[in-house]
Amino acid sequence: MLDSLFRPRGVAVMGASNNPLSIGHIVVKNLKTYGFKGEIYPINPKQTEILGLKAYPTIQDVPGPVDICCIAVKSVLVPQMVDECGKKGVKFVIIHTAGFREMGGEGAKLEDALLEAARKHGVRVYGPNCQGIMNSDPDVSVYANFTFTPLNQGKVSIIGQSGGCAEMINLNLRNMGSGFRIYASHGNASDVNTNEILEYLGNDPETHAIMMHIESMKDTPGFIERCRKIARDKSILAIRTGRTQAAATAVSSHTGSLIQQDSLTDAVFERAGVMRFQIAEEMIAAGYALSTQPVPSGPNVGIIANAGGPGIIAIDECILNGLQLAKFSDETKKKLRDGLIPEAYVDNPVDVAATATPEHFALTLDLLNKDPNVDSILITMVTPPFVDCEGLAKSISEASGKLTKPIIVSVLTNENWAGTVEIIRKAGIPVYNFPETASRALAAMVRYGNIRKRLEEPPAQAGGDKARAGKILSASKAGFIPQAAAFDILAAYNIPAAHTLPVAGANLPEVPFPAVLKVDSEKIVHKSDEGGVALNLGDQEALQKAFKDMSGRFPGANFVVQEQCPAGTEVIIGIKREEGIGPVMMFGLGGVYVEMLKDVSFRLAPLSEADASRMVREIRSFPLLEGGRGLEPSDITALEKLLIKVSQMAQELPEIIEMDLNPVIVYPEGKGVKVVDARIKKQ
Amino acid sequence: MLDSLFRPRGVAVMGASNNPLSIGHIVVKNLKTYGFKGEIYPINPKQTEILGLKAYPTIQDVPGPVDICCIAVKSVLVPQMVDECGKKGVKFVIIHTAGFREMGGEGAKLEDALLEAARKHGVRVYGPNCQGIMNSDPDVSVYANFTFTPLNQGKVSIIGQSGGCAEMINLNLRNMGSGFRIYASHGNASDVNTNEILEYLGNDPETHAIMMHIESMKDTPGFIERCRKIARDKSILAIRTGRTQAAATAVSSHTGSLIQQDSLTDAVFERAGVMRFQIAEEMIAAGYALSTQPVPSGPNVGIIANAGGPGIIAIDECILNGLQLAKFSDETKKKLRDGLIPEAYVDNPVDVAATATPEHFALTLDLLNKDPNVDSILITMVTPPFVDCEGLAKSISEASGKLTKPIIVSVLTNENWAGTVEIIRKAGIPVYNFPETASRALAAMVRYGNIRKRLEEPPAQAGGDKARAGKILSASKAGFIPQAAAFDILAAYNIPAAHTLPVAGANLPEVPFPAVLKVDSEKIVHKSDEGGVALNLGDQEALQKAFKDMSGRFPGANFVVQEQCPAGTEVIIGIKREEGIGPVMMFGLGGVYVEMLKDVSFRLAPLSEADASRMVREIRSFPLLEGGRGLEPSDITALEKLLIKVSQMAQELPEIIEMDLNPVIVYPEGKGVKVVDARIKKQ
Repeated sequence: MLDSLFRPRGVAVMGASNNPLSIGHIVVKNLKTYGFKGEIYPINPKQTEILGLKAYPTIQDVPGPVDICCIAVKSVLVPQMVDECGKKGVKFVIIHTAGFREMGGEGAKLEDALLEAARKHGVRVYGPNCQGIMNSDPDVSVYANFTFTPLNQGKVSIIGQSGGCAEMINLNLRNMGSGFRIYASHGNASDVNTNEILEYLGNDPETHAIMMHIESMKDTPGFIERCRKIARDKSILAIRTGRTQAAATAVSSHTGSLIQQDSLTDAVFERAGVMRFQIAEEMIAAGYALSTQPVPSGPNVGIIANAGGPGIIAIDECILNGLQLAKFSDETKKKLRDGLIPEAYVDNPVDVAATATPEHFALTLDLLNKDPNVDSILITMVTPPFVDCEGLAKSISEASGKLTKPIIVSVLTNENWAGTVEIIRKAGIPVYNFPETASRALAAMVRYGNIRKRLEEPPAQAGGDKARAGKILSASKAGFIPQAAAFDILAAYNIPAAHTLPVAGANLPEVPFPAVLKVDSEKIVHKSDEGGVALNLGDQEALQKAFKDMSGRFPGANFVVQEQCPAGTEVIIGIKREEGIGPVMMFGLGGVYVEMLKDVSFRLAPLSEADASRMVREIRSFPLLEGGRGLEPSDITALEKLLIKVSQMAQELPEIIEMDLNPVIVYPEGKGVKVVDARIKKQ
Repeated sequence: MLDSLFRPRGVAVMGASNNPLSIGHIVVKNLKTYGFKGEIYPINPKQTEILGLKAYPTIQDVPGPVDICCIAVKSVLVPQMVDECGKKGVKFVIIHTAGFREMGGEGAKLEDALLEAARKHGVRVYGPNCQGIMNSDPDVSVYANFTFTPLNQGKVSIIGQSGGCAEMINLNLRNMGSGFRIYASHGNASDVNTNEILEYLGNDPETHAIMMHIESMKDTPGFIERCRKIARDKSILAIRTGRTQAAATAVSSHTGSLIQQDSLTDAVFERAGVMRFQIAEEMIAAGYALSTQPVPSGPNVGIIANAGGPGIIAIDECILNGLQLAKFSDETKKKLRDGLIPEAYVDNPVDVAATATPEHFALTLDLLNKDPNVDSILITMVTPPFVDCEGLAKSISEASGKLTKPIIVSVLTNENWAGTVEIIRKAGIPVYNFPETASRALAAMVRYGNIRKRLEEPPAQAGGDKARAGKILSASKAGFIPQAAAFDILAAYNIPAAHTLPVAGANLPEVPFPAVLKVDSEKIVHKSDEGGVALNLGDQEALQKAFKDMSGRFPGANFVVQEQCPAGTEVIIGIKREEGIGPVMMFGLGGVYVEMLKDVSFRLAPLSEADASRMVREIRSFPLLEGGRGLEPSDITALEKLLIKVSQMAQELPEIIEMDLNPVIVYPEGKGVKVVDARIKKQ
C-alpha cells in the first residue's frame, strides 16, 4: 500500500525555491544531496532552475510520473495544490506546511478541505504539519524531509509522531554509530497513519527493529493486532511522551478507576508485544542492538573485560536488569586458564587483563560461544596506550563472524584509538560508550526474547456458559445490575462465590448461619463504609433484627443474604472497558493495598495461563500471597484460574462495561477462592 | 598536605623508556604533551635521552628538587626504588606498577616492604597499582598518569578507586563537552587515601564539584565528616560499584539485619551529603551542570523550547524527577505575548516556535530570569535548517551573562550546526544531546540545593538521662539485657512504653488487668511465634494459669508482666551499630511490611527534626500512617519525637550495639505512641 510513498520513482516539490532558508529549498537539497534514485521535480512558477535542477511552473508541466509531491506552500494554498496533484495522478502528497488541525478552528477546516480534494482524486495524504519520510535503501535513497540527520544505511526503522522526537531518536542513533532503514514522521496523520506505517515496516525485509515515538493512539485494537504480528519477527520499541499530564488524571474513589492513562499505556504495550522505554537513549541503544544482533536464547551472559572497574559495572547492571552471569563449563574454564596469562581471571566475568592480545580475545570469544551455558557475550573494553587496540578490534571483528550468539561491546577510548570502535562496528556489532548502556541494551534483547515467547502463548480456556450469562444480562437494566444477577453470571462461568440470595420484600431467604445481610443498591459503592453490611449474624433472630435496622436506614433499597465466608487473604479483581481499547483487567490485594498503596497490576484481556501467573506475581505485595514467616501460602493456582475466567467473561460479554469482584477471598493452598462481593455494570 | 602531589615542581619517572608501549614512556609523553610547567626527569640507566628529554641513570643524579617520582618498574624492584626516592628527598611516589596487595600473598608483603621504605624517609605513597594524578590548572598542567583523556580545563574534579571507572567518568565528561580540574585514581590507596584527596579537593578553590567512583570505604566516619563540610560549598557526586554482590548478603530473620550493605551505602551517603547515582552517565551530566552553574534556589523550572516534542519530554522528565513547572507571572506572559510571534505558546513551557529569532530567545531568557516564580531555566532547542542557529546560540550565550539563575540546554543538532553547541558551551552553559539528560541534570542541581539546606539542620535535642541509662547498662551482662532493664533505659529517655514489671521467682507483680505475660530470654527472638506471649489476661487467675503453662514450656526462663495496650498501628524502630560506621537507625511498619515487603527507611544517627520527618515519610506504606479512606491519621508527631529520642540514645549510649523496638504502637493523632516490646543488645 505504501510502496509508492517509501519507494517513489519521482518526487515533486511544491514551494521549491532558491532561498536556502526555505523548507522547499531544503527538501530539494536533501533529495539531491543524498542521491535520490528517481527524478526530482522542483515546482516554482517563477524559477527555471533550482539547485541545478530544472524547475517546472506547475505540477502539470512535469513530464514523468510523480509518486510523491512534497508541499511546502502557505497553508491556505494547500487544498488547491492537492487538487492539482490529483489531476496529475500524484499518489502521495507529503504536506510539510503547518497551520491545520493542530491549530483548531480555521486550520481544521483547511485540513478537511485538503482531505476532500485528495479523496476526489484518490490521492493519499501524508501529514500535514509533518517532517516527511526517508528510506536509506540504496535502490531508492529518498530523503523527502526537511530535517538534517544524514542518510546512512542501518537496519532499524523509526516512526515518530513528533518530528522533534523522531529527529532526536535518529540523530542520537547516528551519534551511537548506527544508520537507519526507513524514517517516517507523519505529523497530523490525517490519512496515512501510524498503524499503516507500522504494517509497512513489518513487511520490509530490511527493517530488523522498529523504534517509535508515540503521543497518542487512534486505533488501539488495530495497533495491538499489527504489533502482535510484527513483534514475532522483529522487535518494536517505543517511548511515549506526555506521561505526567496523563498521570494527573484524578483517581476517583472507585477502584476500577485506578486504571490510569499511563498504566493503560503499559497494558496496551504489554498486550501488543511492544517494549516500552522511559528514556529515549535507552530505547535507541536497545534498538541498535536488536537491529544488528540475534536474539539471545536466554538470560545467561558471559562477560569479557580487560579492566576490572567497567567489568564490575557491567555485572551490576546486567543483574539489576534481570540477566544472569553464565556459569561456565569446566572445559571453558580450563581452556581459558591454559590460553590466557596467569594474571587473567578465568571465571565470569573473564578478566583477560589490560595486556591481553588479539589472540586472547579470539580464544575467549570462541570458548564462550561454544559453551552451552552462555546465551550472549558482552565485552567491556578499555584501550590501554600500551596495547595494539586496533589489533584487538580486528580480532573481535573476525571472531564475530563465527559467533552464533549475540555480542555487544562497550569501549572506553578516545580519538587516538578511534579506529578501534569503527572496526568493531563495521562487523555489525553495536558499540557503546558506557558499560551500563551496553548491559541495558543486552537486557532489552533478552526482554524481547521473552516477548517473542509470550506472543506464542494461546489464550487460556476456562469454559463458561456465555448464553446463560447473556440472558441474565439482557434481563437487567443498564447500569449496576442487582447483586443476585451478578452472582448468577459468576455462576454461569463456574466462578466460586459466596452463596447469595435476594431478599424479596420482607421475606428473608434461608441460608446457613452465620449469615451476612447486605444492601444492594447501585448508589452505594462502599457498602461497608456506609453501614450497609451486617456480618456474622448467628441466627434467624439476629438476621431479622439487622434487616429491620437496615431497611429503616436504606428505605426502598434491595437486600441480599449471603453465607458468612471464613476469613482469608482478600484480593480485588476488576474489569473496565476502556473507550477505544477494550476490557482492561486489574488485580491487587484488598484492604489498603489497592486503595491506599496503589499496588495493582493491569492486563488487557484475553489472558494466557502465563499472563495470569505474571499478573498475580507483578504486584509488590505478592509475598503476602506466597506466604512464609507464619503466613500460610495462598491458593495461587485457584486465583490464576479465577483471573482466566474473568478474562473470558471480559471477552465474551461486551455488555459488561465494568465489573468489580471485591473482595475475593483467597484461601490457603488447595482450598480455593471465593467471590464475596460482585458489582457488574451493564452498558 | 597534598600540594606537592597535585602541584609538583619536578616529576621524575622511573621506568621511563623509549618503548612506546611501556607505561614509563607514556607517562613521560603525557607530561610533555600536556605542557607540564615543572621539570620532567626520565630515569633510565641505559638511555641518555627519552622523548627529547635528558635521561638520568638514577634519581640521585637528578639536579633539581623532585616532588613526585612516578614508578613503573617491576614490582619486586619497587621497595628499593622507593628507598632511593627517599634518599633523594622525593615527597610523593606514584606507583603505577601492579602486583601488590590486590594479588594477596607475596604481593601484600611487597607492599608492606615499600611502605616501610617510604616511612623510613617520610615519603608519601600514592598507589601502588594506580593510574596516577592530573591537574589541569594552567599554572601546573601536570599529567602524571598513563591514561589517555586529554588535559582540558574544567571545574569538576574526579576521584576514582578503579582506574577504568575514573577514566570512564573523565572520558565521557569530555564527550559531553567539559574539561576537568583535578583527577586522582589511587588504586590500592596504601597511604594517600580517598578521604585525604577529598579534603584537598574541598580546599581547591577551582574545584566546583567532585565526582567519585567508590568500591569500598576505609574510614567511613572520616568520609562522612569531610563530605558534610565540603558539601556545604560544593557538590559531591558518587557512583558505587559492586552493588549486586553486596545485595546478595543474606537477610537473617532478625529485623536489624535488614540493614543490607547497599542500603547502608545510601544511608552513609545521605548522612554525608553525597549525591548517589545509579548510572555513571547521569552523574557525569549532573556534575557538569553543578560545576558550571549556580544552584537553583527552588524546584520551579521555566522551559523554553523551539520544537514541541522535545519540550514535552522535558516536562515529563522534570516532573518525574521532582521539579515543578514554574507558574509565570502575568507580566511575564504579557511581555512574551507582545514580543514573540503569534504562533508562540507563552505559558510554561514557552514554545518560541521553530522560526524563533535570536531576539526572541534573548527576550524570553530575560523575562524568565526576572520572573520571581522561576528558579531555573531549561532550553530544549532544535537547529532547524531554515534558521540561523549560530545566531540563536550567540543570543543565548550573551543573555546568559546577565542571568542570575542557572541555565542548562539540550540541543538536537549535527555537524552542520556544530558551532551552535560550541558557542553555548563557551559561555559556561552545559549542553546535552537529550532533553531527558538535561532535565535530570537540572533535577540533580535542585537535589543538591536541598542537601545544602539539610546539612545546616542541627541535630534534634530530646532530653534524656544518659547517666541513669548508662548505669542500667553497666549493671547488665553483655548480650541481650533483661526486658525490665530495657524498659528502664527507655524510661530514662522519657520514651513512652507499656508498663512492664519483671516476675521474681513465682511472684507475679501487680499490674492493671487485662495484662500480658511474656517470656524474657535472649534466646527467644520471635516470642509470639514461639508461644512466649499470652495476651489479654483478664484477671489474676488467668495470669496465674498462663504463667504455669509458660514456665513449663520455657524451663529456667525469666518472665515479665505487662499492661495490655490498646490496638493501633504497629511500627518497628531499630538501631544497629555497624562495624566502622556507627549506629544505623531503621524504621518501618510492623507486621508484614518490614518482614515480608522490606519496606524500611534507614538513617545514620543523629537525626535532625527534618530527618525524622523524612524518615517516616520515605517508606512506601506511609499512606497508612497518614490515614484517609476510613483510616484515622496516626500521631506522626509523636512518632517523629520517638525517632529523635532513639537517635539520641544511639549517639549517647555506644554500649548498645543493637536495639529493636518492635512493636511500637502508634495511636491516632494527639494520642501518642507506646513501645510494647524492646530488645537491647549490649556490647
